[in-house]
Amino acid sequence: MFSLNTRFEQDSILITTLDLCQVRLQNDSRYLWLVLIPEVADKEEVHELSTEQQHVLIEESSRVATVLQNFSKCDKVNIANLGNIVRQLHWHIVARFNTDEAWPGPIWGVGHAVPYPTEKANELVVSLSDLLSNT
Amino acid sequence: MFSLNTRFEQDSILITTLDLCQVRLQNDSRYLWLVLIPEVADKEEVHELSTEQQHVLIEESSRVATVLQNFSKCDKVNIANLGNIVRQLHWHIVARFNTDEAWPGPIWGVGHAVPYPTEKANELVVSLSDLLSNT
Repeated sequence: MFSLNTRFEQDSILITTLDLCQVRLQNDSRYLWLVLIPEVADKEEVHELSTEQQHVLIEESSRVATVLQNFSKCDKVNIANLGNIVRQLHWHIVARFNTDEAWPGPIWGVGHAVPYPTEKANELVVSLSDLLSNT
Repeated sequence: MFSLNTRFEQDSILITTLDLCQVRLQNDSRYLWLVLIPEVADKEEVHELSTEQQHVLIEESSRVATVLQNFSKCDKVNIANLGNIVRQLHWHIVARFNTDEAWPGPIWGVGHAVPYPTEKANELVVSLSDLLSNT
């Protein structure tokens, strides 16, 4: 049975749940950074999903990336399945700007998270949830 | 018309071409690192591909990741679409070991590439090409 790793509970906020994946806002105001977590048990690699689940994953990823790009007007979307530390299968989808502190390198492992003020996090969750429900 | 970015020509070696993607070996012996490049013109983001192309991309990515994991016995596969520097759409698929120099962080932007001896690169290309043609 699917159970969310506690690291995601601590570090991110649920925006919405799509057919396959939870979409969560990483609580790090340095980047507009979402995490997709397929609600399937005991998977660590994309290729462990069924072909049908893989199709849904990339469709949901693209839906989220489109919303993120339109909403943020970012320069580039970065998508990654790393999982070297938190093994539960998850995809990072990050709006990148050529002015952000890690550009043009990857964001992972650089500096320390700066949590959002609660009100700002709530605003983002509502805005992104609305946009995702209309796509 | 699709045309390979010169950076890929310089930094990687063609292993094989699948239905959608070129599969290339990054010429950096620190990691077993493959790059998938969809042979479509003028795309920078996954969500710019058609839904059908997205399905093929994730299927080919999973096929390559499975071969890479079985061949290398790695601890984790890392997959990423970054493209902040080289904008032509490409996916990195990397075999990660808990002993590699960047573990558990991402590999991009860490240190400098160490090219393979030519014979070793050729061996890898032949082995991976054979494995991919049999999956």
